[in-house]
Amino acid sequence: MPIKILILNGPNLNLLGERETGTYGKETLAVIEKTLTKAFTKIQFEFRQSNVEGELVNLIHAARKKDSGIVFNPGAYTHYSIALRDAVAAVSIPVVEVHLSNIHAREDFRKNSMTAPVCIGQISGFGSYSYHLGVMALVRYLEKK
Amino acid sequence: MPIKILILNGPNLNLLGERETGTYGKETLAVIEKTLTKAFTKIQFEFRQSNVEGELVNLIHAARKKDSGIVFNPGAYTHYSIALRDAVAAVSIPVVEVHLSNIHAREDFRKNSMTAPVCIGQISGFGSYSYHLGVMALVRYLEKK
Amino acid sequence: MPIKILILNGPNLNLLGERETGTYGKETLAVIEKTLTKAFTKIQFEFRQSNVEGELVNLIHAARKKDSGIVFNPGAYTHYSIALRDAVAAVSIPVVEVHLSNIHAREDFRKNSMTAPVCIGQISGFGSYSYHLGVMALVRYLEKK
Amino acid sequence: MPIKILILNGPNLNLLGERETGTYGKETLAVIEKTLTKAFTKIQFEFRQSNVEGELVNLIHAARKKDSGIVFNPGAYTHYSIALRDAVAAVSIPVVEVHLSNIHAREDFRKNSMTAPVCIGQISGFGSYSYHLGVMALVRYLEKK
Amino acid sequence: MPIKILILNGPNLNLLGERETGTYGKETLAVIEKTLTKAFTKIQFEFRQSNVEGELVNLIHAARKKDSGIVFNPGAYTHYSIALRDAVAAVSIPVVEVHLSNIHAREDFRKNSMTAPVCIGQISGFGSYSYHLGVMALVRYLEKK
Amino acid sequence: MPIKILILNGPNLNLLGERETGTYGKETLAVIEKTLTKAFTKIQFEFRQSNVEGELVNLIHAARKKDSGIVFNPGAYTHYSIALRDAVAAVSIPVVEVHLSNIHAREDFRKNSMTAPVCIGQISGFGSYSYHLGVMALVRYLEKK
Amino acid sequence: MPIKILILNGPNLNLLGERETGTYGKETLAVIEKTLTKAFTKIQFEFRQSNVEGELVNLIHAARKKDSGIVFNPGAYTHYSIALRDAVAAVSIPVVEVHLSNIHAREDFRKNSMTAPVCIGQISGFGSYSYHLGVMALVRYLEKK
Amino acid sequence: MPIKILILNGPNLNLLGERETGTYGKETLAVIEKTLTKAFTKIQFEFRQSNVEGELVNLIHAARKKDSGIVFNPGAYTHYSIALRDAVAAVSIPVVEVHLSNIHAREDFRKNSMTAPVCIGQISGFGSYSYHLGVMALVRYLEKK
Amino acid sequence: MPIKILILNGPNLNLLGERETGTYGKETLAVIEKTLTKAFTKIQFEFRQSNVEGELVNLIHAARKKDSGIVFNPGAYTHYSIALRDAVAAVSIPVVEVHLSNIHAREDFRKNSMTAPVCIGQISGFGSYSYHLGVMALVRYLEKK
Amino acid sequence: MPIKILILNGPNLNLLGERETGTYGKETLAVIEKTLTKAFTKIQFEFRQSNVEGELVNLIHAARKKDSGIVFNPGAYTHYSIALRDAVAAVSIPVVEVHLSNIHAREDFRKNSMTAPVCIGQISGFGSYSYHLGVMALVRYLEKK
Amino acid sequence: MPIKILILNGPNLNLLGERETGTYGKETLAVIEKTLTKAFTKIQFEFRQSNVEGELVNLIHAARKKDSGIVFNPGAYTHYSIALRDAVAAVSIPVVEVHLSNIHAREDFRKNSMTAPVCIGQISGFGSYSYHLGVMALVRYLEKK
Amino acid sequence: MPIKILILNGPNLNLLGERETGTYGKETLAVIEKTLTKAFTKIQFEFRQSNVEGELVNLIHAARKKDSGIVFNPGAYTHYSIALRDAVAAVSIPVVEVHLSNIHAREDFRKNSMTAPVCIGQISGFGSYSYHLGVMALVRYLEKK
Repeated sequence: MPIKILILNGPNLNLLGERETGTYGKETLAVIEKTLTKAFTKIQFEFRQSNVEGELVNLIHAARKKDSGIVFNPGAYTHYSIALRDAVAAVSIPVVEVHLSNIHAREDFRKNSMTAPVCIGQISGFGSYSYHLGVMALVRYLEKK
Repeated sequence: MPIKILILNGPNLNLLGERETGTYGKETLAVIEKTLTKAFTKIQFEFRQSNVEGELVNLIHAARKKDSGIVFNPGAYTHYSIALRDAVAAVSIPVVEVHLSNIHAREDFRKNSMTAPVCIGQISGFGSYSYHLGVMALVRYLEKK
Repeated sequence: MPIKILILNGPNLNLLGERETGTYGKETLAVIEKTLTKAFTKIQFEFRQSNVEGELVNLIHAARKKDSGIVFNPGAYTHYSIALRDAVAAVSIPVVEVHLSNIHAREDFRKNSMTAPVCIGQISGFGSYSYHLGVMALVRYLEKK
Repeated sequence: MPIKILILNGPNLNLLGERETGTYGKETLAVIEKTLTKAFTKIQFEFRQSNVEGELVNLIHAARKKDSGIVFNPGAYTHYSIALRDAVAAVSIPVVEVHLSNIHAREDFRKNSMTAPVCIGQISGFGSYSYHLGVMALVRYLEKK
Repeated sequence: MPIKILILNGPNLNLLGERETGTYGKETLAVIEKTLTKAFTKIQFEFRQSNVEGELVNLIHAARKKDSGIVFNPGAYTHYSIALRDAVAAVSIPVVEVHLSNIHAREDFRKNSMTAPVCIGQISGFGSYSYHLGVMALVRYLEKK
Repeated sequence: MPIKILILNGPNLNLLGERETGTYGKETLAVIEKTLTKAFTKIQFEFRQSNVEGELVNLIHAARKKDSGIVFNPGAYTHYSIALRDAVAAVSIPVVEVHLSNIHAREDFRKNSMTAPVCIGQISGFGSYSYHLGVMALVRYLEKK
Repeated sequence: MPIKILILNGPNLNLLGERETGTYGKETLAVIEKTLTKAFTKIQFEFRQSNVEGELVNLIHAARKKDSGIVFNPGAYTHYSIALRDAVAAVSIPVVEVHLSNIHAREDFRKNSMTAPVCIGQISGFGSYSYHLGVMALVRYLEKK
Repeated sequence: MPIKILILNGPNLNLLGERETGTYGKETLAVIEKTLTKAFTKIQFEFRQSNVEGELVNLIHAARKKDSGIVFNPGAYTHYSIALRDAVAAVSIPVVEVHLSNIHAREDFRKNSMTAPVCIGQISGFGSYSYHLGVMALVRYLEKK
Repeated sequence: MPIKILILNGPNLNLLGERETGTYGKETLAVIEKTLTKAFTKIQFEFRQSNVEGELVNLIHAARKKDSGIVFNPGAYTHYSIALRDAVAAVSIPVVEVHLSNIHAREDFRKNSMTAPVCIGQISGFGSYSYHLGVMALVRYLEKK
Repeated sequence: MPIKILILNGPNLNLLGERETGTYGKETLAVIEKTLTKAFTKIQFEFRQSNVEGELVNLIHAARKKDSGIVFNPGAYTHYSIALRDAVAAVSIPVVEVHLSNIHAREDFRKNSMTAPVCIGQISGFGSYSYHLGVMALVRYLEKK
Repeated sequence: MPIKILILNGPNLNLLGERETGTYGKETLAVIEKTLTKAFTKIQFEFRQSNVEGELVNLIHAARKKDSGIVFNPGAYTHYSIALRDAVAAVSIPVVEVHLSNIHAREDFRKNSMTAPVCIGQISGFGSYSYHLGVMALVRYLEKK
Repeated sequence: MPIKILILNGPNLNLLGERETGTYGKETLAVIEKTLTKAFTKIQFEFRQSNVEGELVNLIHAARKKDSGIVFNPGAYTHYSIALRDAVAAVSIPVVEVHLSNIHAREDFRKNSMTAPVCIGQISGFGSYSYHLGVMALVRYLEKK
């Protein structure tokens, strides 16, 4: 049975490739998704993005029944969404937190992650390649279990 | 005229009975709702749950015209939603805040409630029975007024 | 065997009905006690009040041998008495913390409770009816156990 | 080509004129919108309000292609929404933050603005006239550029 | 009818004249009391000291029926006793807070007073003469009312 | 009777047009004053600037008898002058706080305003046009009263 | 040789009797000065007030050669003027800090006094009578030395 | 003349051997006292325990005339009792602070000791043997003096 | 020319496989090194570990001349070593920070990283596989440059 | 053309040699000025001192046109004067901050300098010789430019 | 088999007897070691001191194979060395933390111990006798196990 | 007898001239040392640099017997090394702290100096000339003593 992974993106990531390209790079989300699909041919991906905190909660809930795990970039919600933290804690599938930019090298309020403590780990700073690493980390985790 | 009460639940409470049962208990939200309906036969209940902060704001707004009061479990939003605080303050009907778990016995960030200061009171720690107590407190408040 | 409950009140609650009636209501402690006795005819109540922190510690200790549980309004000690916290943690009977006023809607230093984390739960803001709800919560807890 | 301005309102502002009128005044949002339309006959306005943080993000995104700028009252989200801050930073059109009440004269948690640092400026405390001033400030900014 | 004033002293003040005389002076409490009696012949004084926080609460309660006001040196309790703050707020007679040493010139934790905000004022740093000034301030307050 | 407005400027604003022009713009104070006089022909302006905190206090005091209101840029004093806060609170005429730069987008210590809570509102970030908006806000306030 | 006392008043106290009379009372500074002169016929008073921090420093410096001591109400400067603290510490004559209002019962930023730690003591909350008590405390201190 | 030592215990230590035995061990206070008496046959012990802060103050005061020193476990009062700190500072006999549990390995609020700075030293974490070490430390101190 | 990577490990990582295996896993450092060598056959690895902060500084300095980049697990030094932060900033080769455990899910003092802001990114929580991901991230970075 | 340096002194420094000589030394400002004049015969000095914050701002402004640089001892204003910080930042001539005492070895509130971040450097702790070093540092800076 | 104890001393303790003798006493480390050897004839001691944090880590690692336990005075590293904390946590032998001076009675930054939470206990304030007590505590712990 | 001065440099200063030259300048440590030797021909210099905190402690200890004083640039250790602070306090020779960059103008964590309070003074911001000034300050101090 193939591994099914939800690539879940939070607020403003739909503008990727257009928005603050100095910080976030020039690739669009579509390009990133295509690259992942090509790189991991045996994995069944679902790609979702929402700007609405509660819809991200819904998508995490929905994943618990149909996906093996989640690679999650909570965007700005990383830093204050206890609702997303609780959603991740509420589902039994593993979640890897990823960030395009190095959040530790930016404003102080971006250093804290509400969600990372309930994820299996965090990857931050490698541009779109953070997703690639996140998928690898998740697959490894699933295989080890 | 019968008392009409909105039982309003915030994020992740739709997973009740399945999620972190050590902390939140094994009853589902449906069971809790049924129990309340049975226990308070003279009260007309409306049961709503949403994971979206802004929809909870909408539901509080809508209640101000048709309900006598609200028993509100804001879930994770309790601790940071100024929008929900303002929504409660904006409507003239009384709101009782309830929590399944004892929020004072958990992580530090769960001790503060943004919403409690504009509610008439807070009940925390008695599992699904917190709702029962919340309804009683609300009814009492409405009768006294 | 009847349920025996200690209704324990902390500092300044002996002045109830006279003191800052805008905040605490006009009922005296005696009236509250009478109301509880009438409302819960099957429960054997003991009513105690003290302004002395250490005497409240003594009363909690004493209760552990003869009472089923405690409904406790620690008054001002709520916010700084580690001695009372330790006393509650030291006894094996359940304790419910109650407050007449909504402590979350007052001065910042009243928001923190040293005792709530070791109680089974906290009820705050419903005037003298907080005791009524506290007794119900305690009874429920004892029955469930 | 006429200047096109999005007047964007955040949570609870749909209750304007009804909610805490001592703080926010008695004019409804509809009246404010009508007044603006009358006052600035050469400007093409779009008026939007949402209680959902993520929808406000969406509306800011949408504006970047069709509007010259935004006059934005983020309501309660002002104080904690990094998602809205990022949305404002992500679009290249100028945004002016406005508030009906003087947020500096209220609770401490209302003093900080997450969004103001990425807006061109902030206007706070002049009731519905804050919008009028905001439009003027925005027009001036657009003309100067 | 003569003015009746309770001179109330908190913990460790019974050791006055013996304890840390560099900070608190060499006069005993008895000498201070004698000096006051001589200086204010028309005032009826009651002198009480206790090391027990709750007994000080009791003494303040008792004073509300028989005394015109209190000159109160809460000693170490000044800095953390919310119980004494509530006791002072609970009685309708005026209370003047006095200190022998200049509490503003000592350890940081002595700078804050829990009781001063509910007293009519605070006098600090004039040795035993602080009591003298306290009595004058209280008499003046009573005469003005 | 014409509206009389004091345009009051705090420390270092005499160097406007020369000092850190990237932050504060290239217009001198004289130019700003001329522009205001031209724009609001029916208003009688008085223009004052001082680098001395206490002289600004004096100028606010003096204004209370002869001016209808003040448009005040307290410059650096904004962030720590309780004396100016008290001066504004002491006079019964309305004061509007204005800033050339967006103080919310600069160093942390510039985010807090000691004076804004006692002004009717604050306008920040629109360069010399902040004064224009400030005058409009003040006039509107005076007309509404 | 008569005792010479400087009664020194800080910012905004020149508006006494007119400004926020609920907080500061209705007596003007002139009336307070007259009352002191009458009450203490053997003392030679000098009365000075300035809104300028540095002038208050100058006046304290000047007093060190010609006055026996100072009764000082630093007004708003109390809470942040290290310059005044250093001025008081620099002169060898004793200084008593006085306040009309009970600064401990107001905004948090008024609780701290930069100057009190280098004064002999502080008197706060007794209206214009605080000056009277301050003079008594100073005289006592001078006599004891 | 034999060394006389007061073994003084604070709140909840009367429940030793019964209370949270995982943290505090299974020996009762009586057993500890017997063990000390046997171990140090030349020392004259007095054993006292109280749950009342003020009575502990009284016992420290009383000891100053009849004991050579105190081995003091202030229990929960360790962390907030300035009254006990002042009592220890007020008496001229040496005091050693002891704790059964390692207070540095528990909740944050147990890390600070109000009393340790005025004791000669602190011993924490060795169960009932902490008292044994405390007596040895005190005897050594007395012999060296 | 082959890519040369320094795998640098900080304090206590020499005990890997023996130390707190619940947190850090059962693999020894030698095993991790062997696994990396096998997995990345084209990369020339150097493996170094030191418990001495200054030696780690030396090793980073040395690497700047002979290595293409560093995969660095600073261990406990992560959280307070400004010397290591400066060492990383001082060399022009890229550094990836890795952690075996999820540092965001542990004690508060482990959440902050002094070194991450000057690294290109951080990977945390994937056991020994964090090194594998770190090497991949570094290689990718080197290839992109 | 000779180098022209303004030696600028802040509050209370006029009392040098008389005030707290243990901390600030016994030399008067006049002596320090004479010593500098003798030591640096090729430099044209101007010596100014003021206790008024705003006058110091004025003196810095004035210097920008006629002096090569400033050696500035802001005294107590060092720690809170944003006005002086802005004044230094506003002028294009270099400023060296000097202190007689070692400000890092005194009260906590003296450790922070508002002005140092906009000066070229800070010299602290060498008594009157700090001015000598300051002049040397300034001259060096001017020569290097 | 004899008990083997490592007496491990951190930075600057090699200067004992010479350095700040008012705080640390006049005995050298050599004298302390001799005294211990004499006092505990059945224990096999190893005495080590290092000023290098990482060498202390090494010494703790080495001890885990050959010693029964460690009496550890981490000196200044007590307050910030997470590396030493992790080293103590990494080895399975018990460690007792000792201090010559009463660290609770000194600068604030000396009150916190990074290492104590992972030691079995802490002894502080008894001069060189702290080591004696530390050995006793360790022996007792080993015997009880 | 000639003055002997140890020029002691902390971590990463061996990379001077190569590392972040915008912040630290382009001169190497060797050049700085040569310049000092030339400038102060009568002083006997010893130049030492180490990246190891404990070795710096050793070097300070060693200096106490053979050097007249130390000019010390603790580099990154400035901000957290209590071990170096204690080392400086432990030796009786004077130490001057110097920094190449203006540490007050950089990251917040570089503003605090753990070592400066026990040095005679601090010089910061004048590039390599800071060492020159440091030597002068030290010589002056030694001559004055």
